[in-house]
Amino acid sequence: MAEKPMWEQIGSGFVQHYYQQFDTDRVKLADLYTDASCLTWEGEGFQGKNAIMTKLSSLPFQTIQHSITAQDHHPTPDSCVMSMVMGQLKVFLLKNVDNKWVCTNDMFRLALHNFGA
Amino acid sequence: MAEKPMWEQIGSGFVQHYYQQFDTDRVKLADLYTDASCLTWEGEGFQGKNAIMTKLSSLPFQTIQHSITAQDHHPTPDSCVMSMVMGQLKVFLLKNVDNKWVCTNDMFRLALHNFGA
Repeated sequence: MAEKPMWEQIGSGFVQHYYQQFDTDRVKLADLYTDASCLTWEGEGFQGKNAIMTKLSSLPFQTIQHSITAQDHHPTPDSCVMSMVMGQLKVFLLKNVDNKWVCTNDMFRLALHNFGA
Repeated sequence: MAEKPMWEQIGSGFVQHYYQQFDTDRVKLADLYTDASCLTWEGEGFQGKNAIMTKLSSLPFQTIQHSITAQDHHPTPDSCVMSMVMGQLKVFLLKNVDNKWVCTNDMFRLALHNFGA
C-alpha cells in the first residue's frame, strides 16, 4: 500500500495534534505559533504568539465539539504545507523553522453564517 | 483615510479578477496558473496549468452565480499572499514570479455538503 505523500502526513498530523491540544489544554497551542504568525478570526486580525494566544484563550466557549468533515493539504513552492479544514473552517500555512513545523498563518471562519434561512 | 495593506489589495484584486474571468471567459484563467500550480477540487488533485484548465473547463455548469460572503488575506513568511474566500469556498496561495502574481495553490470545497439535514 502506497504511503501518503509527505505533505499529507505533515498536514493531517498537524490538524490532529492541533484539535487535540485545543480540546484538552488550549494554552499549549502556543508552541505552534511564532511571533510572526498571523491569525484572522471572523475577519479580525491578530499578529504574534501572544496576541493569538490571548484571543484563543478568551473565546467564550470552554469546550467545543470539533466536527471535521474534510481536509485538504498542498505542498507550496516555498516548502510549506497549506491545509484547509472543513467543518469548523480553518486554513493553516505550516513552515519548517529550525527543524520544527510551526503555523505561520491561520484563518478561521464559521461557515454556518452563509446559510441563514 | 488609510490605504488597505498591500496584501489586502493584491488578494482582493486577485479574487475580483479571478471570478470575473471565471464568469466571462474561463479559459483565460490559464494566465493565472503555472506548470507547478496545484488544485484540489472536492478532494481530487490536479497539478500544472494544463491539468487545472482541463478540470476547470470541464465543469458541468457553464455559468455560475458566485456568491462571496467574506474574504480574508494574509501576508506569508515567503512574501506570498494567502487568501480565503467564503461562499463558494476557495483558498488561494499567490506568489510573485517574474514580477507577476500567479496562483501556486488553489483549493475548492463546496461548503453546503457539511450541513445536510
